Amino acid sequence: MKNILEYIHKHFERFVRELTEYATIPSVSFPGYPAEPLVESARWTARKMKEIGLEHVELLEIPGAPPFVVGDWLHAAGAPTLLLYAHHDVQPPGRPEKWQSPAFAPERRGERLYGRGVVDDKAGALLHLAAVEAYLKTEGKLPVNVRFLIEGEEETGSEHLGKFLRQYRDRLQADVMVLTDTANLDVGLPSLTYRLRGLVDAMVEVRTLDHPIHSGMWGGPAPDALSVLNKILARLTTPEGKIAIPDFEEGMLPVEGRERERLCTLPFDEKKFLREIGAVPSLRLAGEEEFSVYERIWCRPAAAILGIDAPQVEKTSNQIVEWARAKVSIRIVSGMNPQKSLERLCAFLAKDPPDGAEVAVHPGAAGNPWKVDPSGAAYDAALRALKKGFGRDPVLIGCGGSIPFVEPLTQAFGGIPALLIGLEDPYCNAHGENESLYLPDWKKGMEAALWLYAENFK
Amino acid sequence: MKNILEYIHKHFERFVRELTEYATIPSVSFPGYPAEPLVESARWTARKMKEIGLEHVELLEIPGAPPFVVGDWLHAAGAPTLLLYAHHDVQPPGRPEKWQSPAFAPERRGERLYGRGVVDDKAGALLHLAAVEAYLKTEGKLPVNVRFLIEGEEETGSEHLGKFLRQYRDRLQADVMVLTDTANLDVGLPSLTYRLRGLVDAMVEVRTLDHPIHSGMWGGPAPDALSVLNKILARLTTPEGKIAIPDFEEGMLPVEGRERERLCTLPFDEKKFLREIGAVPSLRLAGEEEFSVYERIWCRPAAAILGIDAPQVEKTSNQIVEWARAKVSIRIVSGMNPQKSLERLCAFLAKDPPDGAEVAVHPGAAGNPWKVDPSGAAYDAALRALKKGFGRDPVLIGCGGSIPFVEPLTQAFGGIPALLIGLEDPYCNAHGENESLYLPDWKKGMEAALWLYAENFK
Repeated sequence: MKNILEYIHKHFERFVRELTEYATIPSVSFPGYPAEPLVESARWTARKMKEIGLEHVELLEIPGAPPFVVGDWLHAAGAPTLLLYAHHDVQPPGRPEKWQSPAFAPERRGERLYGRGVVDDKAGALLHLAAVEAYLKTEGKLPVNVRFLIEGEEETGSEHLGKFLRQYRDRLQADVMVLTDTANLDVGLPSLTYRLRGLVDAMVEVRTLDHPIHSGMWGGPAPDALSVLNKILARLTTPEGKIAIPDFEEGMLPVEGRERERLCTLPFDEKKFLREIGAVPSLRLAGEEEFSVYERIWCRPAAAILGIDAPQVEKTSNQIVEWARAKVSIRIVSGMNPQKSLERLCAFLAKDPPDGAEVAVHPGAAGNPWKVDPSGAAYDAALRALKKGFGRDPVLIGCGGSIPFVEPLTQAFGGIPALLIGLEDPYCNAHGENESLYLPDWKKGMEAALWLYAENFK
Repeated sequence: MKNILEYIHKHFERFVRELTEYATIPSVSFPGYPAEPLVESARWTARKMKEIGLEHVELLEIPGAPPFVVGDWLHAAGAPTLLLYAHHDVQPPGRPEKWQSPAFAPERRGERLYGRGVVDDKAGALLHLAAVEAYLKTEGKLPVNVRFLIEGEEETGSEHLGKFLRQYRDRLQADVMVLTDTANLDVGLPSLTYRLRGLVDAMVEVRTLDHPIHSGMWGGPAPDALSVLNKILARLTTPEGKIAIPDFEEGMLPVEGRERERLCTLPFDEKKFLREIGAVPSLRLAGEEEFSVYERIWCRPAAAILGIDAPQVEKTSNQIVEWARAKVSIRIVSGMNPQKSLERLCAFLAKDPPDGAEVAVHPGAAGNPWKVDPSGAAYDAALRALKKGFGRDPVLIGCGGSIPFVEPLTQAFGGIPALLIGLEDPYCNAHGENESLYLPDWKKGMEAALWLYAENFK
């Protein structure tokens, strides 16, 4: 293993340059952005795959989706097969004036590389390409079979991944899935994610009148749509921070026993946490006090108001607003049925409209939560590999975000284990401006991958 | 009087043409609109004044304000002097696509004239000019002294009227003020307004974080600014529709005795009212159930959310919103101190911010309510004149809107009576698109003015 590890050390600066080049491609998958950069980033990925010696490298197309990039190396007879998942698309860059260096001109400052997509998820794709390269260029072979799947629409919800899976199932068949797109609990602290929240969202639209009317002439008996909307949204949570929707927690798996113990031993520093989220000095943590902060993020439902359409404050006149709408989301957790949760949310928003206003609720997403028992050969192997790579005991963590396809993808192959590892950290600002990758952890992640491939997964 | 009344009949179609011409001038006084049309409408007004024989006609300037137009006829020795107030500025036209005919190309459809400013308040100005003309062209004199004041910034709050009053007090000195800018309770039903609500408003701004963060990764313990804002706004009213601000009603004059009796005998038809405000079919009237609808509009405080700044629904992503703000207003009523009410509103919005969020409250307007006891010579005279003009018993009504200068203007001349009459009706859509004037009531209003001038005000 020594020479393979040395290969990583020796070539690491080149890997950084390659990532820099990869991340100059503005492969934004959101509607309204051009499709060409996604084709370019797919081609870049495929070229890199071929360069390092992967086989059957191809851009596979599903109508309506950016290209999926696949490639494999399947010559480790008798060894298991890993499905290495990452994505080559990125979030929109956000507000240009907020970036210290341009979003698509990655810049290294100190030990971090700043740019859109560097950590989410181009470093995730390149991590395994570097690790595979290290094996093939030193040993001429891998101790394990690998199949790469680098998709191009993760940031918009992997809409076509199900169809892709049905169509190209044979190209993905594996014994273990490795998804390199999650976060570490802290810089330098290797973390294996074993639970994800799901998501339901809906748009609620309120109309009280067919046109705005003068707030003096009519204010009192004529209700404004914003006040009605305000009352509807205020019902969503109890003063204790619980979701107030009846039976909403039905089926939810309680956190208990060993899992709860594990969560309690994770390092947590409230001041640090508040700094990480950019809290104003006076802010107190919200949510249900009887649960720890990690439980609130990973194991409890949480509602948010994402946006409201209403007259702009600067343009208001003394009018009773006739129409308004809002988008709300609730993160859901393991055991809850997404479709049922969405129906409950919608029914709750539509029920008993204040003042008899007209309320229309438009159901939105209903994404699966996911949870595994992180024990067994594959998880043990991953924990050992992470420990060797990072030189530190890894932790088992949850993630409050959603990766809706983890559940169907693992189920498609008979419920194979899914190893969710990643390179994000509390300071990486994924999705925000000044996204960054902590380079020392990227290197450690590559080393952990080397160890992982050498593990016995049986 | 017969020949004077006949003059009105004979020339009414010309008056309609003149109003049509007057209302083609887009004299919008809002910020961002050009100043020239306001000068043009002031000049149009002055030319008309001179034409009919008024004297000392002048455009008077206060820096920063559109021209004030004054003119008088003061030859009725021993008779009282009326100050005839109206305004030549108009509201912005609103959404062009909502107008059936262009806002500034008035069109007669049936018995109504449609166009911006026709009823608010160019018909109010021309009403008295027509009545004065009728006297001067038939009798060669008026039975009363008149001073006209036609201002150009009523729609933006008459900001400079106080200064104007101090500077040109001598030009306005009068025994009775007649303000022709209010509404009739119904088409054909002459109404004298004896109470107005005041207004306080404020902007409340909430910040929880210094940047938006991912709602999955942090949702639960990290509160979004929109949810905090929503909770603050939800506190403003009780479930019974009362303003929840402590001591907010301090000083408020209760509605009792004769006034309450009068309010109870006013015609009210809930279905008609709902139609007038353009209510959706399912709407129920809001506000305090123990008060009649007229009391709720004229005699009770009422809150409204006027606008909210937040991410647009179509552009939301799964982010915890870091900042949001809203503008709220509360109509206040007679006896309440506007400045105190504003302070109470601001203190209430700022108090105990949910989750310790940063809340900044920016105080806005603090406009006077107004109320008189509508008895005594001037009010009796007005009621008699309205009855003769409209051929129907007039009603004493309130107005839920605000005319902040009524109080200081009447006080400046030792508390002279103020006769608030007008031409608006429930269908006129003043401030909205398709504003219109009901022409038969305009004619009746002119006749009432003829009778009013002939009254004995002592």
